[in-house]
Amino acid sequence: MSLPDDTQLLYLRLASHYQGAIESGSLTPGDRMPSVRSLTRLHKVSLSTALQACHYLEDKGWLEARPRSGYFVRRPRRVSLQPNSEPEQPLQLDAAQYLGIHERVSEFIASCELYPLKTNLAQAFGSPDAYPTEALKHAATRALRSHPEVLVEPTPWHGESGFRAVLARRALDHGMRLTPDDIVVTHGCTEAVNLALRAVTQAGDTVAVESPCYFGLLQIVQSLGLRSIEIPTSPHTGMSIEALELALQTQPSIRAVVVVPNFQNPLGSVMPDAHKERLVALCAEHGKALIEDDSYSALCDAEQSLRAVQSWDTDGTVIYCASLHKTLAPGMRLGWITGGRWHARIKMLKFAQSRPNDALSQLTVGEFMASSAYDRHMTRLRNLLRERRERTAESIAAHFPAGTRLSMPRGGMLLWVQLPPIRSPHALFEQALREGIRVAPGWIFSNSSRYDNYLRINCGIQFTAEVDAAIERLAALVYEQLV
Amino acid sequence: MSLPDDTQLLYLRLASHYQGAIESGSLTPGDRMPSVRSLTRLHKVSLSTALQACHYLEDKGWLEARPRSGYFVRRPRRVSLQPNSEPEQPLQLDAAQYLGIHERVSEFIASCELYPLKTNLAQAFGSPDAYPTEALKHAATRALRSHPEVLVEPTPWHGESGFRAVLARRALDHGMRLTPDDIVVTHGCTEAVNLALRAVTQAGDTVAVESPCYFGLLQIVQSLGLRSIEIPTSPHTGMSIEALELALQTQPSIRAVVVVPNFQNPLGSVMPDAHKERLVALCAEHGKALIEDDSYSALCDAEQSLRAVQSWDTDGTVIYCASLHKTLAPGMRLGWITGGRWHARIKMLKFAQSRPNDALSQLTVGEFMASSAYDRHMTRLRNLLRERRERTAESIAAHFPAGTRLSMPRGGMLLWVQLPPIRSPHALFEQALREGIRVAPGWIFSNSSRYDNYLRINCGIQFTAEVDAAIERLAALVYEQLV
Repeated sequence: MSLPDDTQLLYLRLASHYQGAIESGSLTPGDRMPSVRSLTRLHKVSLSTALQACHYLEDKGWLEARPRSGYFVRRPRRVSLQPNSEPEQPLQLDAAQYLGIHERVSEFIASCELYPLKTNLAQAFGSPDAYPTEALKHAATRALRSHPEVLVEPTPWHGESGFRAVLARRALDHGMRLTPDDIVVTHGCTEAVNLALRAVTQAGDTVAVESPCYFGLLQIVQSLGLRSIEIPTSPHTGMSIEALELALQTQPSIRAVVVVPNFQNPLGSVMPDAHKERLVALCAEHGKALIEDDSYSALCDAEQSLRAVQSWDTDGTVIYCASLHKTLAPGMRLGWITGGRWHARIKMLKFAQSRPNDALSQLTVGEFMASSAYDRHMTRLRNLLRERRERTAESIAAHFPAGTRLSMPRGGMLLWVQLPPIRSPHALFEQALREGIRVAPGWIFSNSSRYDNYLRINCGIQFTAEVDAAIERLAALVYEQLV
Repeated sequence: MSLPDDTQLLYLRLASHYQGAIESGSLTPGDRMPSVRSLTRLHKVSLSTALQACHYLEDKGWLEARPRSGYFVRRPRRVSLQPNSEPEQPLQLDAAQYLGIHERVSEFIASCELYPLKTNLAQAFGSPDAYPTEALKHAATRALRSHPEVLVEPTPWHGESGFRAVLARRALDHGMRLTPDDIVVTHGCTEAVNLALRAVTQAGDTVAVESPCYFGLLQIVQSLGLRSIEIPTSPHTGMSIEALELALQTQPSIRAVVVVPNFQNPLGSVMPDAHKERLVALCAEHGKALIEDDSYSALCDAEQSLRAVQSWDTDGTVIYCASLHKTLAPGMRLGWITGGRWHARIKMLKFAQSRPNDALSQLTVGEFMASSAYDRHMTRLRNLLRERRERTAESIAAHFPAGTRLSMPRGGMLLWVQLPPIRSPHALFEQALREGIRVAPGWIFSNSSRYDNYLRINCGIQFTAEVDAAIERLAALVYEQLV
């Protein structure tokens, strides 16, 4: 590894100087950081070095920028809760499940519609202020001007070429080497996972999934007439490779494994690289398709990107699915897929299922993602989500009863709250709805009753006094239900 | 029935006067029609009555408007070809087919990609000039302005409410009585038909389809693991009700019937109302789902709307699917479905398959379809398609060898050309591709070889000298292949 050049050394030294000051207490939370201009005077560095140092400290979470006021030392956020429990019997597998989740999700949706909503903590994306609303609007307007016939021309096969090129380029950050032709644009990650499962399974087959598992995946599995087998999954390191191995050895009807290796929904777990590598090898060895849902990995607090499982694939075992729904534009439902050795079949299924996507949204997002504005947006989004996640977690720690457990994910917008034993999680959920507070209940994340005692809370929305009050009220309802 | 009021009588009388003049030869093709202003003087009618009469004659095909020059008597287009043959053995059914079409369509696509394209007559929609390009662009820009967060907000469940309301209102024209809640917005008619079939069948079931049949439907059927049974279909009156009845009686594995009652693709046939009514009753009686694909009915030459089969449904037997792809915006892939007694299941499947559609395109089209600009567009489109269809048919009649047959549809943009016996339709198709002329070959419209001797030709594009030359060249290739 080469040493950083002089400029880099300078800004890192400067940053480290101020980091030390904060750690030692010379600067305390809320203190104003010297202005960039005064840093140049004080330390005899260039404006760009001073700025680089501040950006670095902001990225690392030591400073926060306040509009028109400069940088301030950030309140350190410490959450005093125990982390979520590991799976109790990591090697005990349930029977493959066939039915059930539709009913649970339908009941959940029906209950939600019964009461007026005040605070919605049940979704899994940010509020509009987290996304580049104006920039996307302008990009769309420009796309309409530069492609005046885009709404009346045939839609481009497999996706708009410029958009696919930028997706391939951005995928490099996650260790993937793709050409634009390896990519098919889809209606969100949901359609991508549908196509992946349709390509590799037939009705009656079994699919190994994480436990707990995003309810949307369980719905896809059920709607395709498949069974799911839930594999014990650590809230910290993701799906248990040992349990999966056991399942593959004992359940020949398993045709595919579906994982969310980075910031699993709802757990927020991230698979260590060694697990990812082992997972790909295991699936390859057993001849099973490995379907990766990677919608969250770009939302990592740290600057370094998380690697996709696909990046270890050598023989087309992995079908990679992703979306821009969480990171860029919840209103656009853009996703994509690269299908490993099933790519040709996936292209055919996409054509037969819904034809190619409209070009306008692809042109809009393609232009934005090719520019540095996208990088700036992602840095802002990551910081904003970290801030909101930490504030929400602090509020939970402050209000919820002892015995509540919570692991802090290092990215994304979801918190998976493990409640102490309570009498009726269903009654708790209903009462919260009655009071206008909506959360995602644990039981929609499994066909079992293993997660009835859990709530998933979205931290993508602004942390307002109202959200704080909703969490406090939720906590009070938990107290009432304590065993 | 009430008599038309005086104003109506007046414009109809005036129109009938000039229609008589044209029919008797007093006015001949190319003659200029008296100006609207001189009509008011000559006949002592109001400006609006004179205008109404001219519009009426234009709609009926007797006059054509030339920009800034007024109305002219239209060249009557007479096509001297025999109509397409009726099915030879209308009551003989093939065995239900399972496989095959993907390969045919893939080969077709692969062959197309081998040669540079000069004249594309293989598609099934108009060229951009047939659609309201500017108006849609402005509507999209306005939607972005009036809904500034549309790209970053959650997408509306089941579809945008204003758009669904205007779809319900426009469906009245086809005899359907729907509320916006009866409608789910989909990614084109293709996704709608997928959802319909997924709702009512399981892999291994049989679906009755028309013969010939739109290849996209055969692909859906195959990709869902279903079998298709092709029911003899008249080029004039659509699917044979007798043959369908026989199939329903003898093939218990049939779960659903899929029809395009209005301007069937590729035939252009329109089912008489009595057949439509009988079809609904037959499916209801046998407890089979009747899936209606109604993407073309608004493209009828006559002012009067064609009724949807759904309008006869009394017990939820019919699942109605439609799209705006052919009529309004080929670049937007907007479709919709109303699911009869399977509506709840279809809503669930749509959610699990691709989540709700993006709002921007729905807001764009919803605004346009609610205005009279939509009606003006449709009148223009119908006239333009009739004109192009007739010119294309004339060119075919002029150039193709004796024995070529062609039925003239009363709407839409497709011509189904029945060739005289030739040595190798495949060689003909390949040779045409080699010369840059692309048509849809008959064999992708069936799992049988029954239509190898047919071509489907798109008349939605401008009829230029180049198109005329391509048809002449195609005809020369047919001559070379004559048996």
